[in-house]
Amino acid sequence: MNFRMIGYILGRLLVVEGLLMALPLIVSAIYGEYEMLMAFLIPMAVLFSVGLLLSFRKPKNMKIYAKEGFLTVGLSWVVVSLFGCLPFIISGLIPNFVGAFFETVSGFTTTGASVLSSADFDKLWAPASASVGMHGVFLWRCFTHWIGGMGVLVFVLAIMPQQEMSSSHMVYVMRAEMPGPKVDKIVSTVKKTSAIMYGMYTAMTFIQVIFLVSGGLGIYESLCISFSTAGTGGFSVWADNMVSFGGIANIEYCTWVVSVFMFLFSINFNVYFLILTGKVTSALLSEELWWFIGIVMTATALIALNIYTVYWNVSDSIRHAFFQVATILSTTGFATADFNLWPNLSKTLLLILMFIGACAGSTGGGMKVSRLVISFKSAWVEICHMIHPRQVKRVRFERKSVDNDTIKGAFAYIISYGFIFFASLIIVALFDRPSIETLFSSVASTINNVGPGLGAAGPMSNFAFYSPASLIVLSLDMLFGRLEIFPMMMLFSPSVWRGK
Amino acid sequence: MNFRMIGYILGRLLVVEGLLMALPLIVSAIYGEYEMLMAFLIPMAVLFSVGLLLSFRKPKNMKIYAKEGFLTVGLSWVVVSLFGCLPFIISGLIPNFVGAFFETVSGFTTTGASVLSSADFDKLWAPASASVGMHGVFLWRCFTHWIGGMGVLVFVLAIMPQQEMSSSHMVYVMRAEMPGPKVDKIVSTVKKTSAIMYGMYTAMTFIQVIFLVSGGLGIYESLCISFSTAGTGGFSVWADNMVSFGGIANIEYCTWVVSVFMFLFSINFNVYFLILTGKVTSALLSEELWWFIGIVMTATALIALNIYTVYWNVSDSIRHAFFQVATILSTTGFATADFNLWPNLSKTLLLILMFIGACAGSTGGGMKVSRLVISFKSAWVEICHMIHPRQVKRVRFERKSVDNDTIKGAFAYIISYGFIFFASLIIVALFDRPSIETLFSSVASTINNVGPGLGAAGPMSNFAFYSPASLIVLSLDMLFGRLEIFPMMMLFSPSVWRGK
Repeated sequence: MNFRMIGYILGRLLVVEGLLMALPLIVSAIYGEYEMLMAFLIPMAVLFSVGLLLSFRKPKNMKIYAKEGFLTVGLSWVVVSLFGCLPFIISGLIPNFVGAFFETVSGFTTTGASVLSSADFDKLWAPASASVGMHGVFLWRCFTHWIGGMGVLVFVLAIMPQQEMSSSHMVYVMRAEMPGPKVDKIVSTVKKTSAIMYGMYTAMTFIQVIFLVSGGLGIYESLCISFSTAGTGGFSVWADNMVSFGGIANIEYCTWVVSVFMFLFSINFNVYFLILTGKVTSALLSEELWWFIGIVMTATALIALNIYTVYWNVSDSIRHAFFQVATILSTTGFATADFNLWPNLSKTLLLILMFIGACAGSTGGGMKVSRLVISFKSAWVEICHMIHPRQVKRVRFERKSVDNDTIKGAFAYIISYGFIFFASLIIVALFDRPSIETLFSSVASTINNVGPGLGAAGPMSNFAFYSPASLIVLSLDMLFGRLEIFPMMMLFSPSVWRGK
Repeated sequence: MNFRMIGYILGRLLVVEGLLMALPLIVSAIYGEYEMLMAFLIPMAVLFSVGLLLSFRKPKNMKIYAKEGFLTVGLSWVVVSLFGCLPFIISGLIPNFVGAFFETVSGFTTTGASVLSSADFDKLWAPASASVGMHGVFLWRCFTHWIGGMGVLVFVLAIMPQQEMSSSHMVYVMRAEMPGPKVDKIVSTVKKTSAIMYGMYTAMTFIQVIFLVSGGLGIYESLCISFSTAGTGGFSVWADNMVSFGGIANIEYCTWVVSVFMFLFSINFNVYFLILTGKVTSALLSEELWWFIGIVMTATALIALNIYTVYWNVSDSIRHAFFQVATILSTTGFATADFNLWPNLSKTLLLILMFIGACAGSTGGGMKVSRLVISFKSAWVEICHMIHPRQVKRVRFERKSVDNDTIKGAFAYIISYGFIFFASLIIVALFDRPSIETLFSSVASTINNVGPGLGAAGPMSNFAFYSPASLIVLSLDMLFGRLEIFPMMMLFSPSVWRGK
C-alpha cells in the first residue's frame, strides 16, 4: 500500500478545498457579513497548512492501483467533510460537532438531509434584528452539493497539471469515485475526461441560474438553488424548502425549471458528451436513458392520478407529481409539498423510487437505473435457463453483451447494500426510538442520498432529533451510498491498514 | 409441454386431497357436529370426481422435465387451495370466496395470516349457545399447515406405488417444490426420499403432541397446535393465538415446548436424516445449522434485553424473546405477546428476521439461511476480487466449493423476490390505504410465509380489513414465497401455455 502517495493526493485535495472556500468568503464580504469572515479564514488557514505539509514533497513512487484508489477515495470524503464542517461550527450555525459533520457529509454526498430547524434559516436573512446574516455560510452549504456532485477527487484531477500524475494510475481513483456499474470503458485520458465533465457541469449550472434569474429569483438564491440542483443535493435557502420560493410571484415557472434541471442532472453525462461531439443518434440510443424516462413517466402519471384527490386540480397535481418524482429519482430531495400528507400509494411509490435512483454517471444517487436493469435482465436469463436448461442466452445491455464480472459486481453491490441497510436499521434503533416509518425512510433516504424521509424525518422536518450516535451512522450511510460501498469498506478493513 | 401428464398428476393429487379430508370429517363426527359433515362430504365428492376423471387413464407419454415440474407445482398449489377452501365456505365460517381462498392459501403455504376475527373463534367451541361447534373445520384449518409444510406433491410421491412414475422424471417435481438453494444432490430415489421425509415429519409431530398433552393441554388442541407448529404455519385454535393457551395452568411449559419445536422444524431435515442414519458428526458439521443457531441466539439476546423494560422480569423476557424469534425465524407466526407494543428495536429486528427465514429443506419460509449465507460469501469474494484483482478465491459453503449456477440462482431469486415485494406494495396500495408500517409488514409477512405483520395486521388483529383485490395479491405473494417464485412465474408466462 503506497501510503505516501495517498497522503500526497489528500494534501492536494485539502489545498483545493481551501481554495474553494474563497467563494463563500467573497460572498460574505459582498453582503458585509464581516463577523463571518473568520468562519472561512480559519478553516482555509488550516487546510492550506495541512495540505501543503502533506503534498510538499512529491513521493518517489507515484504508482497506485485499485486498492489505493479505493482507499484514497474513502479517506478523501471523510477528511474533506471533517474540514468542511468548520465554517458551520465557527459561524455558530451548528455549534455541535456531530451535527455539523452530519450536515457537511449530507452536503458533499449530495444527500440534503439537514439538522437545521426553521428558526435557523432566519439567521441567513437576519431580517429585522441587529444580528448579522449568513449568506456566505448558507452558500457554502449549497456549494458542498455542487463540489460533491461530480466527485471531490475528480475535481482535483480536472484542475491538476497534466504531467503531475500519470493517467494510467489515476484511473483507479476516478473509477472508485464515479457512480454506477462500469459498462463503458472510461476515456483513457483521465485529466481530459474530468475537465470535460466539469466543463459541461459548470455550463449546465449557469444555464439554470439564468433561467431562474429570468423567472424573478434573486442571483444569490438562483446560485444556491442551482448548486443544489446540479449536485442533486437538496439543500435550500428557505425554511419551507421550495414551497414558496421565498415568496416570489412566479412560483410555478421556477418549479418547472428546477424539475426539468433535476431530471437533466440525473442523466448519464455520457449522453451529453455524445451530443456535444455530434453523436446525437448514439446518445438517443442509450438504453438506460429510455428506462429512466419510462420510470419517470409511469411514476408521474400514477402519482398525479393519486394526488388529484388532494389538490382537485390537474395542473397542480401534474406539477407536484413530476417535481416529486424528479426530486426523489434524481435523489435531490427538494420539496414543493409535504408528501407526508399524500395518500399511501404515492408515499410507497416515492419510497421505492428512492432505491432506484438516477442513471449511472450522473450526479444522482440510489442503486442506479442501469445496475437494476442489468440485475433484472440477468435474473430473467437465469429463470429462462432454469426452465430451458439447454438454451443459452446472454444478458444484453446498451446493445452489448454484459460480461460476468459486471453481473457479479451488481450482485455484490446489492447484497452489501442490503446488509448495510439492515445493519443501520438495527444500530439506529439501538440509540433512538423513531417510528418504523421514520426509521426505515431515514436510512433509505440517507443511503440513497435523497435527503428527506417520511414521518418525523419528512420534508418539513429535520434530522436534529436523532442522537449523535445515530447521526454518525446515518453520515456513514450517506458516504456508503455516495461512494457505492466499496471505498468505504476499505476504511473498515484492518488488513488494508496493515498495508497488505 | 406434456399437458396430459400434468393433468394426470393433478388428478392424483385431488384424490389424495379428498382422502385427507377424512380426518376432519371423522373429528366432526366424534364431536357430534353432524351439521358440519356436509362441509367435508361435498368437497370430497367433488375432489374424487374431478380427480378420478383426470387420472382415470394413464397418459402414454409419462416423461416430464424441468418446465413441466415447475408448472405442475405452480398449478397444484392453486388448484389444491381452490378446492381446499370449500369446507370454510360450506360450513359458513368464511362465507365469502376470496376470504376463504386467502385463508386456505395461508394454510397450505404455512403462512398463518388469517381473516378470522375473535368472534369467529367462538364458533369453534360453541360455548353456551345452542349452535353447533366447528372442531372439524378448525382442525382442517390447522391440518392444511401440516399438509403444506412438507409439500403437497411430495406427499403424493410418498404414498404413490413405486412403479407409477419413474424417479428420474419426478425429481423435477420434487426439486420445484422443495425450498432452498440446491447445494446437496437429492437422493436419487424420489419415492424413498419423500417417504423418509414424511416419516420423520409425522414422528416429530406426534412427539410434540405427547409433550403438549403431558402439559395438560387437551388432545384436540395439542393435535391442532402440533400440526401448525410442524408446518411452521401459525393458525391457532384460540382467539388470542397462544397468549393464554385456552386458560390452562401450565402456560410457561407449553410455551417452551412450542418454542423448541418451532426451532426444530426450522432446521434442514437432512440433519435429522443424517442423525437417524448414524452420521451424527456430519450432521453437526452442517454450516447452515450453526449460522441458524447463531442468528437465533443473537436475536434472542438482543430482544430479551430490549423488552426487559416491558416485563421487568428476566425469565418472562427470555421466554417471550425466544418464542418470538423462533416463531418469526421459523416463519410460523404464533404469538404469545402483542409485539406491536414492544420497543422499535425489537420490532425492527423481527421485521428483518422475517426476510431471513428458516433453513433450506425445512418446513419454514423466508429467503432461507443458506441462500443468504451463500449470497454474502459471494459478495465478499467479489469485493476481495475488486481489491486484489489477481487473487483467485472461491465461494465455499458446507465445506464444498459453490458452483456458479447456485450463485446465479441465488441472485436471480433475490432480484425476483425484490421485484415481487415492491410490485405487491404498489398494487395493494392501489386498492387499500393501510399505514406504511402495516403495508410493508403485511407484504413482508405474506411473501415470507410468516403470518402476522405489524400495525393493523399485527398478531392480535387480522387481514379481514383488506379489499378482495388486495387479499388476492397477498394470496399470490404467499404462493410466490412458499414455492420460491419460479413455479408461480410459469403460471403467468403466456409462452408456457402455448406449450412452447
